[in-house]
Amino acid sequence: MAVSPTVPTGGAGPAEMLGGGFPGGHIVLVSGLPGTGKTCLALQFLLEGIRRGDKGVFLSLEEDVPQLLETGRQFGWPVDDAVKRGQLKVVRLDPKETRQSLHRIQGELAQELTGLGAKRIVLDSVSLLNMLSDDEAGRRSTLFALAAACRASGATTVLTAEADPRHPEVSRDGLSEYVADGVVVLGYRTAADGHRVGLALRVLKMRRTAHARTVQPYAIGPGGLSVDAKAVDLGS
Amino acid sequence: MAVSPTVPTGGAGPAEMLGGGFPGGHIVLVSGLPGTGKTCLALQFLLEGIRRGDKGVFLSLEEDVPQLLETGRQFGWPVDDAVKRGQLKVVRLDPKETRQSLHRIQGELAQELTGLGAKRIVLDSVSLLNMLSDDEAGRRSTLFALAAACRASGATTVLTAEADPRHPEVSRDGLSEYVADGVVVLGYRTAADGHRVGLALRVLKMRRTAHARTVQPYAIGPGGLSVDAKAVDLGS
Amino acid sequence: MAVSPTVPTGGAGPAEMLGGGFPGGHIVLVSGLPGTGKTCLALQFLLEGIRRGDKGVFLSLEEDVPQLLETGRQFGWPVDDAVKRGQLKVVRLDPKETRQSLHRIQGELAQELTGLGAKRIVLDSVSLLNMLSDDEAGRRSTLFALAAACRASGATTVLTAEADPRHPEVSRDGLSEYVADGVVVLGYRTAADGHRVGLALRVLKMRRTAHARTVQPYAIGPGGLSVDAKAVDLGS
Amino acid sequence: MAVSPTVPTGGAGPAEMLGGGFPGGHIVLVSGLPGTGKTCLALQFLLEGIRRGDKGVFLSLEEDVPQLLETGRQFGWPVDDAVKRGQLKVVRLDPKETRQSLHRIQGELAQELTGLGAKRIVLDSVSLLNMLSDDEAGRRSTLFALAAACRASGATTVLTAEADPRHPEVSRDGLSEYVADGVVVLGYRTAADGHRVGLALRVLKMRRTAHARTVQPYAIGPGGLSVDAKAVDLGS
Amino acid sequence: MAVSPTVPTGGAGPAEMLGGGFPGGHIVLVSGLPGTGKTCLALQFLLEGIRRGDKGVFLSLEEDVPQLLETGRQFGWPVDDAVKRGQLKVVRLDPKETRQSLHRIQGELAQELTGLGAKRIVLDSVSLLNMLSDDEAGRRSTLFALAAACRASGATTVLTAEADPRHPEVSRDGLSEYVADGVVVLGYRTAADGHRVGLALRVLKMRRTAHARTVQPYAIGPGGLSVDAKAVDLGS
Amino acid sequence: MAVSPTVPTGGAGPAEMLGGGFPGGHIVLVSGLPGTGKTCLALQFLLEGIRRGDKGVFLSLEEDVPQLLETGRQFGWPVDDAVKRGQLKVVRLDPKETRQSLHRIQGELAQELTGLGAKRIVLDSVSLLNMLSDDEAGRRSTLFALAAACRASGATTVLTAEADPRHPEVSRDGLSEYVADGVVVLGYRTAADGHRVGLALRVLKMRRTAHARTVQPYAIGPGGLSVDAKAVDLGS
Repeated sequence: MAVSPTVPTGGAGPAEMLGGGFPGGHIVLVSGLPGTGKTCLALQFLLEGIRRGDKGVFLSLEEDVPQLLETGRQFGWPVDDAVKRGQLKVVRLDPKETRQSLHRIQGELAQELTGLGAKRIVLDSVSLLNMLSDDEAGRRSTLFALAAACRASGATTVLTAEADPRHPEVSRDGLSEYVADGVVVLGYRTAADGHRVGLALRVLKMRRTAHARTVQPYAIGPGGLSVDAKAVDLGS
Repeated sequence: MAVSPTVPTGGAGPAEMLGGGFPGGHIVLVSGLPGTGKTCLALQFLLEGIRRGDKGVFLSLEEDVPQLLETGRQFGWPVDDAVKRGQLKVVRLDPKETRQSLHRIQGELAQELTGLGAKRIVLDSVSLLNMLSDDEAGRRSTLFALAAACRASGATTVLTAEADPRHPEVSRDGLSEYVADGVVVLGYRTAADGHRVGLALRVLKMRRTAHARTVQPYAIGPGGLSVDAKAVDLGS
Repeated sequence: MAVSPTVPTGGAGPAEMLGGGFPGGHIVLVSGLPGTGKTCLALQFLLEGIRRGDKGVFLSLEEDVPQLLETGRQFGWPVDDAVKRGQLKVVRLDPKETRQSLHRIQGELAQELTGLGAKRIVLDSVSLLNMLSDDEAGRRSTLFALAAACRASGATTVLTAEADPRHPEVSRDGLSEYVADGVVVLGYRTAADGHRVGLALRVLKMRRTAHARTVQPYAIGPGGLSVDAKAVDLGS
Repeated sequence: MAVSPTVPTGGAGPAEMLGGGFPGGHIVLVSGLPGTGKTCLALQFLLEGIRRGDKGVFLSLEEDVPQLLETGRQFGWPVDDAVKRGQLKVVRLDPKETRQSLHRIQGELAQELTGLGAKRIVLDSVSLLNMLSDDEAGRRSTLFALAAACRASGATTVLTAEADPRHPEVSRDGLSEYVADGVVVLGYRTAADGHRVGLALRVLKMRRTAHARTVQPYAIGPGGLSVDAKAVDLGS
Repeated sequence: MAVSPTVPTGGAGPAEMLGGGFPGGHIVLVSGLPGTGKTCLALQFLLEGIRRGDKGVFLSLEEDVPQLLETGRQFGWPVDDAVKRGQLKVVRLDPKETRQSLHRIQGELAQELTGLGAKRIVLDSVSLLNMLSDDEAGRRSTLFALAAACRASGATTVLTAEADPRHPEVSRDGLSEYVADGVVVLGYRTAADGHRVGLALRVLKMRRTAHARTVQPYAIGPGGLSVDAKAVDLGS
Repeated sequence: MAVSPTVPTGGAGPAEMLGGGFPGGHIVLVSGLPGTGKTCLALQFLLEGIRRGDKGVFLSLEEDVPQLLETGRQFGWPVDDAVKRGQLKVVRLDPKETRQSLHRIQGELAQELTGLGAKRIVLDSVSLLNMLSDDEAGRRSTLFALAAACRASGATTVLTAEADPRHPEVSRDGLSEYVADGVVVLGYRTAADGHRVGLALRVLKMRRTAHARTVQPYAIGPGGLSVDAKAVDLGS
């Protein structure tokens, strides 16, 4: 089955499970429990783009810019250089400045993104973004505006989201899936006795792609998140 | 037991489980977890109609028109030709334009559908449609209006819906079942150890039809969704 | 233990489990998951009455009149003849006409039912009726009014209801049980491995009747719903 | 351990599990799933009183007076005679007449009960009573008023309540336990394979009484509810 | 590990599990399902104080004064004598007199308690107290005021609370734990087959005390609640 | 993988699981069920700082200052000396003084913390802090303000939180995780039969650190909380 031009995810990431990467222009939700490497995968996706000449934007609600860059440095990625050369732009959306952050997303973001010429966008995290609105209607309109801005820019987008602890394959707010073309879930493998024995990744959904449906072990180390490629199976 | 004139679903789809297809004029809910092929089954249902001379309308809340057509092309379906010949009409209902989309469904949709002379209608997805309303009352009146418009047109309708992750045989909003004459659930088979081992389809309900009650493995590949026909059993 | 004059349910229905039928004047809730044959059992109950000379009224919120009659024809029941002779009256309560439908149930319904001289009444479904009200208070007052109208008419009544998918022995709204003298649950038998292996019926409650408490397999076929009578046990 | 003067419950009822009956002046909640015999046990408690010369009042929200008396007749109890002699009074509190029923319970009920000289009171059911109020605050004040009226009269009281299907040892509204001195739960025994194999009674709580804590099988038959006495154990 | 001056709990109570009793000045939550002996343990705690010369106050929302004293008599405790000598004061806070009871707790209670010179306080139950407020904010402010009044008096306090039937180690309102220095849970032991086989006590938390973490069987009999001391283990 | 300058946690604490301690400037959530030693770990973290010359602030919503200091004394920590020398400052935020406490956190706290020159901050507990606000919006703005104040001060922070009894790896309010750079969970180990057999600690998340993912047994004794170091594994 033919696939759209793919956007490689970098390193030994989930690209193998997707036949090469995320489809171009997709909005991909990366959902997971705390500590499963969502920010790592998102940053890795931007840095792989930079390596290939794609400009990237990281919209950060979770961390300040210096902390985020430090994360990149620790994985050995040339984040400082990328920032200096204008290839990577980290935008801090402070959750404390609720009104201002929401206004920016619902208003000028589309123009900003297009103006930047970014080919890859990350928002970390859509869960925290959803917390800025007081009601469901506000959450939905923000989310639709964000998705529209990302799509209008033509870039490929990664949204990170906290998984629901009761149903780790669903995001905590239960909304983000509705604007996503793809869903990648980061979680844990459990042994027969129910204990967690390691990290595992699953591609739940990826529109217009014949993706693997297996649960793939992965590790977080220097260079970022790496999937054990040998078990990848692209059968239906 | 006699059945109404059936509307074949196309390919090696669930038609075998229904004794030939969906009963004419039915509203069928196709409910499933993300990535189980709801949009594929819906599009396949329209294209089978076009192959037989039935005009079709795809009301899309999830994806823009170009993305949806690309999906059809990847499955090898002549969507561009069908659009050109006026056999397939894709209508984008933008969830960002809430008021406008709701107004259209509650107002002119019935006339539009009848005017088009469509024999088959798809709405993808009713879950996203339900998210446009701020309260239960609004959701119900939209849903009833949609169902009335589809029934008034005389066409056979497929509504796609997100399954509730806690109870995958129920739709996420728990409302859509109330306007449906039939419910088809797309989900996963689980092995004895609880792990998912593949996709499986079940016809939960189909008014005025002796339908199979078994859980049927299926695959998504070129040509769309195909059910393994050998296990189909139409016993009560 | 003596029982009231019973109202036979028709065919090889649950009558055997009740020592002959529903007690006269009872309001019986028939609750079940989608596709378990609630409408079939309700219609069968009316047609058995017509066969014995009891007039019947079918209050339909779920389906239009032609669809409902088609359902009856498919089971081989003389619905058209019954309608023609004034023995069966199908009343459509359109959920889209909320205000009008609620007004009728809370107002003139009692007089209408008495005027018709109906001995058997069906409302299909009370779940959809409950969805017409915006709050619990409205739901309760509608439900109490409906029950009062049915009781005042002297007829025996069947209310159908969607089962709660989490607790299939309870109705989805959790209210309908409160106006019912009896509760019949349509559901599934599960094998030792948890898989569904067929349909099964249970009489949960039937005031003033020594009813079977067993779970009884049943099938839906020509002639309607038939219970496997051999396992029926009327012990306490 | 010494117990207060007991109020025998009649027949082979739960009296054995309580060392003779309910303590005098107690408010006892009889909670259970539908069809487990709550109304039967309540009526049996009143009739045993009448046999011993105690006047009884049955406050009925669930059923009309004739239906309730018919229930008594079917169990072979002299309800008509008791009513004629002024020993049994059935008071219908119509849930349809919400305002009037609530007003009576919060107002004149205390005087009425004292005026009647009733030694035993039944309210069937407190679950339906709770449904008459629109909010928690209303439910609580009604419940406290009811309990106060019963206590002020000096009588021993039985309140019936629907069990929560998810936690059958708790009442559906979760409030009634707070005004009760004792809780008797009517439910089902389950076999090792999880299937229900019969009815079973448990005394969850009975202030100032050394009650059995075992789960006791019982049957409903002529004469009412009878507990299999041989397994009763009054150890702590 | 050294502990504060302990306040013995009386009888063969949980004192052994705490290295002698509750720490002086603590607020201890005694939480449990209905019928597990919460009121018994609370009264026992007061009577042990009286035996040692500590004045005690019992704030009763659940029962009237005569009923409570009768409970004490049945356990063989000299409650009448204690009341006569001014050593025990039972204060009835009538849940029916909502406004008045809340006003007293939020207002004059602190002065009253100090004026009484009570060394031990019981409130039975904090669950019923929480039901007097219409919203969370009201519940919290009442609870904080109560805790402040108890602490200001210098006494050691026992609050009883209904356990959540779904999670018996948590109180039903989920608030009371927040004002408590210690939590004692009364519940049931279950056998391998899931059936309850007896009562069991657990000290979940006790600030500044090396408490046993085991689940301890106990019985309720003459003299009150007694823990089987042989299994007590004060290891970490 | 390189880590930021670590802030040792003291004793045989979780430092080994983190490659030496918490990363400098982090906000670490210590979440756990009641009685698992959250306050102990938090105090231990401050005292280890004092031993190394770091000033510490303990913001206490749970306990008064004398009680907290007594806790420290019992573990053998020189809290009185630290307070006297100005190395440790315990700030009581009284939950009864809601408005005042919230005002301080949202207002002057940032300046206070910076003025104190504290290198380590504890807030015990964020669960009680969240209870002071009446709605989600208030909770979020307080939490964001608190986190901002702690980060602005440059100190490393520990927030304690009650675990959700249904999902002990999530905090009870479900919000605190969103402002934390790290999450440490204190809970119980369970044996094969489901019974709790001891305390166990897990590092769920720690940004920019290669932390152990194992579940580590620990004990609470003189000197505080100590982790059994032999099983610590820093692999991915």
